[in-house]
Amino acid sequence: MYSAPVDEIAFTLKHVTGFASDLEAGRFGDLSDDLVDAILGEAGRFAAEEIAPLARIGDEKGAVLEDGAVTTPPGWADLYRRWCEGGWNGLSAPEEFGGQGLPTLLAVAAIEMWNSGSMAFAIGPTLTIGAIEALDRHATPELQAAYLEKLVSGEWMGTMNLTEPQAGSDLNALKARAEPAGDGTYRIFGQKIFITYGEHDFTDNIVHLVLARLPDAPAGTRGLSLFLVPKFLVNEDGSPGARNDVFCASLEHKLGIHASPTCTMIYGDGKFGDAPGAIGWLIGEENRGLACMFTMMNNARLAVGMQGVGIAEAATQRALAYAHERRQGRAPGASGGAGDSMSPIVGHPDIQRMLLTMKAKTQMARAIAYCCAHAIDMARIAEGDEAKTWQARADILTPMAKAFSTDIGVEVASLGVQVHGGMGYIEETGAAVFYRDARIAPIYEGTNGIQAIDLVMRKLPLQGGEAIAAFLAGLRADQKAIAESGNERLGATAERTAAALDDLEAATAFLMKTAGEGGVETALAGATPYLRLFALTIGTIFNARAVAGNDDPGRALLVRFMAENLLGETTVLKERVVGGADSLIAAAEAVLGN
Amino acid sequence: MYSAPVDEIAFTLKHVTGFASDLEAGRFGDLSDDLVDAILGEAGRFAAEEIAPLARIGDEKGAVLEDGAVTTPPGWADLYRRWCEGGWNGLSAPEEFGGQGLPTLLAVAAIEMWNSGSMAFAIGPTLTIGAIEALDRHATPELQAAYLEKLVSGEWMGTMNLTEPQAGSDLNALKARAEPAGDGTYRIFGQKIFITYGEHDFTDNIVHLVLARLPDAPAGTRGLSLFLVPKFLVNEDGSPGARNDVFCASLEHKLGIHASPTCTMIYGDGKFGDAPGAIGWLIGEENRGLACMFTMMNNARLAVGMQGVGIAEAATQRALAYAHERRQGRAPGASGGAGDSMSPIVGHPDIQRMLLTMKAKTQMARAIAYCCAHAIDMARIAEGDEAKTWQARADILTPMAKAFSTDIGVEVASLGVQVHGGMGYIEETGAAVFYRDARIAPIYEGTNGIQAIDLVMRKLPLQGGEAIAAFLAGLRADQKAIAESGNERLGATAERTAAALDDLEAATAFLMKTAGEGGVETALAGATPYLRLFALTIGTIFNARAVAGNDDPGRALLVRFMAENLLGETTVLKERVVGGADSLIAAAEAVLGN
Repeated sequence: MYSAPVDEIAFTLKHVTGFASDLEAGRFGDLSDDLVDAILGEAGRFAAEEIAPLARIGDEKGAVLEDGAVTTPPGWADLYRRWCEGGWNGLSAPEEFGGQGLPTLLAVAAIEMWNSGSMAFAIGPTLTIGAIEALDRHATPELQAAYLEKLVSGEWMGTMNLTEPQAGSDLNALKARAEPAGDGTYRIFGQKIFITYGEHDFTDNIVHLVLARLPDAPAGTRGLSLFLVPKFLVNEDGSPGARNDVFCASLEHKLGIHASPTCTMIYGDGKFGDAPGAIGWLIGEENRGLACMFTMMNNARLAVGMQGVGIAEAATQRALAYAHERRQGRAPGASGGAGDSMSPIVGHPDIQRMLLTMKAKTQMARAIAYCCAHAIDMARIAEGDEAKTWQARADILTPMAKAFSTDIGVEVASLGVQVHGGMGYIEETGAAVFYRDARIAPIYEGTNGIQAIDLVMRKLPLQGGEAIAAFLAGLRADQKAIAESGNERLGATAERTAAALDDLEAATAFLMKTAGEGGVETALAGATPYLRLFALTIGTIFNARAVAGNDDPGRALLVRFMAENLLGETTVLKERVVGGADSLIAAAEAVLGN
Repeated sequence: MYSAPVDEIAFTLKHVTGFASDLEAGRFGDLSDDLVDAILGEAGRFAAEEIAPLARIGDEKGAVLEDGAVTTPPGWADLYRRWCEGGWNGLSAPEEFGGQGLPTLLAVAAIEMWNSGSMAFAIGPTLTIGAIEALDRHATPELQAAYLEKLVSGEWMGTMNLTEPQAGSDLNALKARAEPAGDGTYRIFGQKIFITYGEHDFTDNIVHLVLARLPDAPAGTRGLSLFLVPKFLVNEDGSPGARNDVFCASLEHKLGIHASPTCTMIYGDGKFGDAPGAIGWLIGEENRGLACMFTMMNNARLAVGMQGVGIAEAATQRALAYAHERRQGRAPGASGGAGDSMSPIVGHPDIQRMLLTMKAKTQMARAIAYCCAHAIDMARIAEGDEAKTWQARADILTPMAKAFSTDIGVEVASLGVQVHGGMGYIEETGAAVFYRDARIAPIYEGTNGIQAIDLVMRKLPLQGGEAIAAFLAGLRADQKAIAESGNERLGATAERTAAALDDLEAATAFLMKTAGEGGVETALAGATPYLRLFALTIGTIFNARAVAGNDDPGRALLVRFMAENLLGETTVLKERVVGGADSLIAAAEAVLGN
């Protein structure tokens, strides 16, 4: 069973990101180190004692649709009620609407733990947090007054409606439409698919944020507007009133996250209400819906990254516990004796390799994601050039926080099954569910391929290339500090990180030059290996930087394992970036028939 | 839907392995090229038209246990009947007992296709094939007469009973016991778990091969004997008679291969029969059961490898078909135009990278597995030193045919889900089932970690190291031939394979020296990366060798993709082997708490 790794999380949050010194410098107001610890401890307790025990029944029973109503698994609605009572929903929400206004970094650490408890549970509130941010930034004061307090408290939940059958990654192709009703509201028509928690029994009302096109809107994404469409219209006194013309037509039968209802939502079918169309309110400006939605999406990308970290942590804990219990064979160096003298499998080097790889990848991803969250916070509290630098850093880190974390989530969950041997394949053991749940995270909120393309095509050119240059210069300085620390427990970390930085710089220069000279296809072909090369490098350096001057042997030895066993991959990845595209392009036509 | 890649399979079978020239030289008797093609075509047809259409209902309904009887999914028992009628069960079985006596290589190619159709179906007959081989080699003429014909025809099926709750990888710990009954038979007592097709409704009788200990047998694996225990005792006329004291107590609830019943079998519980114990007959000699079982296990390892290849092929086909249908975004180089001008996603370089990686890994694994099967055949038909050389080659290839194929089975199935985007996570799409099914193959028949240890600790020292030296010398010669072919489509294949061979030789020398000098822990720590390094190298060289003098552009360009995009991994893997163990051993205690 999951136990929140509060020490590891607190260390990463405070020392890997640099948050501790900002906190000490008073940059986060009166937030104290003690309060941070208390929140992490309590969030971890909720994850381990309240959420995790309901994960299994959630997976087994799943969400069920009957007569348009979705029933969540036994105990889940009550779990959600306790969650709201604990104030967790408003952790980083604006204080003005009842939230606690805490840093994103703290919320992200909590979200990691909730995802370790149950990814299918944590994803619902996570989307509400995104909806809160979109409304807080873009909605009219009237809409904010009507909805924000209830979303912050968790009394109502929010959803995000982008995808349509013909439009997944490509929002240009969205067809849902909105017609002005003449009274300031709009009528929404269309079908949305893959809507997470689109319908459920957690709350009395559900607040849908829906992308749709106004009549005569330009084609493509510049013709999209964002609308707020509540399940129940809100009465003057704030209570839910008449049913709006939106309903859940079906639930998807998925590989994992069974308890999370994935809905097909139908807007404006005439099933409810007395006039055609679901009633909606514009958020932000007409035809500027994508900008509003991006507020949610960037947040959601980091949050999905935390699903990867959370699943990886939970899978690692379970595999490690099993490796201590299960006895098979005799480990090298184990004392002799006949019959019952089998060793716990954690004593076998091949099992150790798997477990250390799981630990190391999880900690790399955690470091990247937390540093991303910290950059988001600093961009918000800093001003002028400092804010711009932090924002650029957040922009660069976001695709890696999403893609690398979720890729390693799958890899680590798969290793977790392997460590369990035959027992890992049996659902009751609880290792297989991580492997199933983890698999969606590299797909939604922008596939990991799209994250990699975002990194190469949008983030590298930021500030005319100055942002990435500054970022790389910072990594060089970090590497120097690591080398100068003289921490012997780090083994060859200094040399290996220097070599990885060489690879990263070479690959970066190649991609920027190639893309700049019109070699878009070549740059796109290298995007995925580039993202991984980048993430492995910073995942190691961020951790090494923090432990270089530290006395803890475990942390330093794990970093040494990263450097000496995992980081070498950067050489191959660089080769793929700078020399792999030609054979890829040449083979594509002949082999794939396109 | 699956379409058997008969051309690719025939090319690999004939030209990658070298079987074509052996066939031409008449080393396989009167077996003709035409007959080979006819069998492949017909096996592929059966896989695509008969097996594949029942895969989905098999996954959905699964096998069900009620009152001790297992019901397979609707249509499956009839599918099995048609399978037997087609004579498929006896493809490589001895002619003396009604089999066709065809080469293992042909059977392996057919098994690949059947696994592409449905892994849950193919695994049952595969185990029967292993049981046939064990009986053919080790059983008394009386037992052979009573059982072999019916197993070869498929009228009865065979099972393999090793695992007990406390004894998975470690057969030393087996506790099931056998007592001589005084009449030449034995009474068997004990519980066996994870017994594939231990109970079902395909056949009137089931022939269990069971490892158990005689009274006063030595401890460890030298005290194991193998017994034949039929579900129904066999009457004088050969028909099934009284029920034997063995039954299926439960079925496992698994991540995948739902239609394959995974049984807990209870022997000698007194539920059936009038005296305690299930009645069994000794196969081979007392306390030599493991040797007999290994006949089945080596076969089964290659067969499990084919599950990896079969799943990878099926997952690749499905992803490629989807990538041609699904339109999103605009591919680089696609012609302009507004609105509906989305490109099929197969035009996007990042999707191409995934699909080519899937294709390339599948073909690497296929080449290794087929070469292994060919070596098994040649060892059987050759004599003297030639036979020994082929046997050593088969011994070296078997762990890679099992582990690499099943590792890439998981990797390819996971990429297949990713190519599908959100649709991949929906069970109805049919991509997720490959990801679930594939995950067991790296575990059973000896985990892939155990395969790697087998390669390093047992196979490298074969013939005092001469076997591996000869194998590596052969690869050098192949590499030279590739370089001299001057095939320009192969790009940098010559240079890359030369570099990979350097890595392989260095890693091999290091491991042999280290293990020889008592550095067992270090050698064990490097086993898994070593196996992958070895497999990537030969997977590329075996294919490159076959296409170097060939005109087919697709095959050559796929090899070039292997060499320029996948083979570079050998550098990192070599580093892990020769330089990774120290940090692994150092971190294990501090980080894993052992």
